[in-house]
Amino acid sequence: MAIPKSSQAFPRSEYLRRLAEVKLEMKRREIDALVVTTPANITYLSGYTSKSGYVPQGLLVLLEDEEPTFITRRMDGPAAIHQMFIDPSRVIGYPEALIANPDRDGYDAIIDFLLDKVGNRGIGLEAKFLPSLTIEKFRHRAAEARIVDCTNAVTWIRGLKSDLEIAMMREAAAISDAGMLKAKEVIRPGLREADAAAEIIATLVRGANGKPGTDIASFFMCSTPRTSTCHIRWTEDIFRQGSQINLEFSGVRHGYTSPLMRTMSIGRPADHLRRLHDGEVAGLEAALAAAKTGGTCSDIAVAFNATLKKHGFEKESRCGYAVGIDWTEPTASLKEGDMTVLQPNMTFHLMLGNWINEDVGYVISETFRVTDAGGEPFTKLPRELFEI
Amino acid sequence: MAIPKSSQAFPRSEYLRRLAEVKLEMKRREIDALVVTTPANITYLSGYTSKSGYVPQGLLVLLEDEEPTFITRRMDGPAAIHQMFIDPSRVIGYPEALIANPDRDGYDAIIDFLLDKVGNRGIGLEAKFLPSLTIEKFRHRAAEARIVDCTNAVTWIRGLKSDLEIAMMREAAAISDAGMLKAKEVIRPGLREADAAAEIIATLVRGANGKPGTDIASFFMCSTPRTSTCHIRWTEDIFRQGSQINLEFSGVRHGYTSPLMRTMSIGRPADHLRRLHDGEVAGLEAALAAAKTGGTCSDIAVAFNATLKKHGFEKESRCGYAVGIDWTEPTASLKEGDMTVLQPNMTFHLMLGNWINEDVGYVISETFRVTDAGGEPFTKLPRELFEI
Repeated sequence: MAIPKSSQAFPRSEYLRRLAEVKLEMKRREIDALVVTTPANITYLSGYTSKSGYVPQGLLVLLEDEEPTFITRRMDGPAAIHQMFIDPSRVIGYPEALIANPDRDGYDAIIDFLLDKVGNRGIGLEAKFLPSLTIEKFRHRAAEARIVDCTNAVTWIRGLKSDLEIAMMREAAAISDAGMLKAKEVIRPGLREADAAAEIIATLVRGANGKPGTDIASFFMCSTPRTSTCHIRWTEDIFRQGSQINLEFSGVRHGYTSPLMRTMSIGRPADHLRRLHDGEVAGLEAALAAAKTGGTCSDIAVAFNATLKKHGFEKESRCGYAVGIDWTEPTASLKEGDMTVLQPNMTFHLMLGNWINEDVGYVISETFRVTDAGGEPFTKLPRELFEI
Repeated sequence: MAIPKSSQAFPRSEYLRRLAEVKLEMKRREIDALVVTTPANITYLSGYTSKSGYVPQGLLVLLEDEEPTFITRRMDGPAAIHQMFIDPSRVIGYPEALIANPDRDGYDAIIDFLLDKVGNRGIGLEAKFLPSLTIEKFRHRAAEARIVDCTNAVTWIRGLKSDLEIAMMREAAAISDAGMLKAKEVIRPGLREADAAAEIIATLVRGANGKPGTDIASFFMCSTPRTSTCHIRWTEDIFRQGSQINLEFSGVRHGYTSPLMRTMSIGRPADHLRRLHDGEVAGLEAALAAAKTGGTCSDIAVAFNATLKKHGFEKESRCGYAVGIDWTEPTASLKEGDMTVLQPNMTFHLMLGNWINEDVGYVISETFRVTDAGGEPFTKLPRELFEI
């Protein structure tokens, strides 16, 4: 007996549509094979979300083949057969002899396959994210081939979501909302931060509207006296009357995220925090109004920065980034000077966390899609500084 | 006002001891500065566990300085001041202009610092884990310096734990045990896998013995019909009478993990699974008996493989690896031919997951430390095939 296919997150036609876009780009770059190694891009082109990226693996898109071929550690093969939309024969497991072996690794199995299939033609690599020794290995072993850097080629394509993907991100957003409401419900003086985190994370896993979370994404709970930090999970401290809590997390549906940030206060927030909140919310609304088809990422940042400045504040860091599978897409940035043109169903995390100095930090964010009428957020939560 | 120091996981003397070991190795390699970029190694040498590794950062160990210097994105500076044992002046935040900038990034800030401090002397890099463009940048901008590959130099040093670290791993192990007992308690026919995962993960966050979990490590729940897979989180399916559930997860204490695997069965396990379990447990006991000071990693693997074979089974993959901060240490492997000599307080994940074919997979594992009398496991759980 063989392992059955899992229920698929998207229909086959959706994966073939994505692959068609990728192959069009491959033709533009005059390559015959693309070696996709970024886990989020592998998910995008196959439905695979199993966590085998700790060892070399590659989804190989060949111009001449309708379906890609996946080369992975043998023990991870069954999960790929189970989850990927492709025929089981297209999953190739390489042997254990290539694990923890200084001379040959999984990339050698990938190169063997390429030499057999495309020989000395053009091969695209996501070079920026590969170790230097791996790139040297490709150059050396496929010396006759033309090696082309295709870093972020697939990532730019997945920047533009289909309606099916937007629906998936809305499911993730409903889970993010449920997590934030759970935070508001459980946080109180005397509770350990870890116990609140446990409740919120359990909510993110249980999901919302009958759709469970399918993974755990990043999770940050930065509370007094560390509200000026942004990437601490939680601590062993307890909440106190007057504590401020900055939260950032996301529900996950089949790889897709929809990050959300809100600030909470146990008791009445300090006046300076309330003023900062008002400025940031005004900036958020200005940014969403600017997030129209045909505008640019820069327009969004300009609108946000100008509005925040009117309120007497500044934010040093960019005000967001493209978002989707596995959170951040390292492509378009919401910052002044990023001239990426906005198209319908591009999705961004409008990330307005503002860590002003060692004493003051405030967070609010929404994930949205671009429409002709401006940015449409996925969250249904109010833009409040939640008072507990 | 400045952000206060958090309560520290280890005393200052422990970090200085670790740094002394690293500096000894730097002298052997004739380098004046070591650029530590692996997050687990940064945790090891400073206590920092905030998640800023998504952008360039480096902990710079200089022979001439008692304390290292940390260079990170400016917004992540306060977390480093809060968590690291070093003086706040040794945390340097680089500006936002280096984020999402194709020309200059955080590594340029690191190189600027090195050129100023060590000039054209020897600089060590954890090269294997750096992007090729980054290594080129070091070679180009620090052209006069001698660049030395120090991949895994710190990782080998942290392979040998202090008693303080062993105590921390025991705390993590108690959390792993609590998670496994929670799994046995909640899994039942009709429950969604996601709901069981939520309960188990919440337990891992709440912790055990008054010590909360401080992070979420990897978590895998591979149930019928996908017991032949190893790295799927969980699914939207429900458990049924007769389901088999393979679990792998770990509690986390200040970065330290103590992974644990067990197999559960709803109802009486099939005979072939029971036989496989008996063989694996016999192999586990033989492996622990061989894990004595002065032996080798290979000895452990030989003992396990020979015993399993006597029971009529084989395991293709290695039977474990060095373990500690952030789970796997990419150094010593429990496989035949790995001649790493065992020393007291080396710690390993004896990982006996055995995914035999597309139908059959079984898991059991224990994290242990090497002693003169053999491997001493951290878990207090019985070596059972848990029947629910």
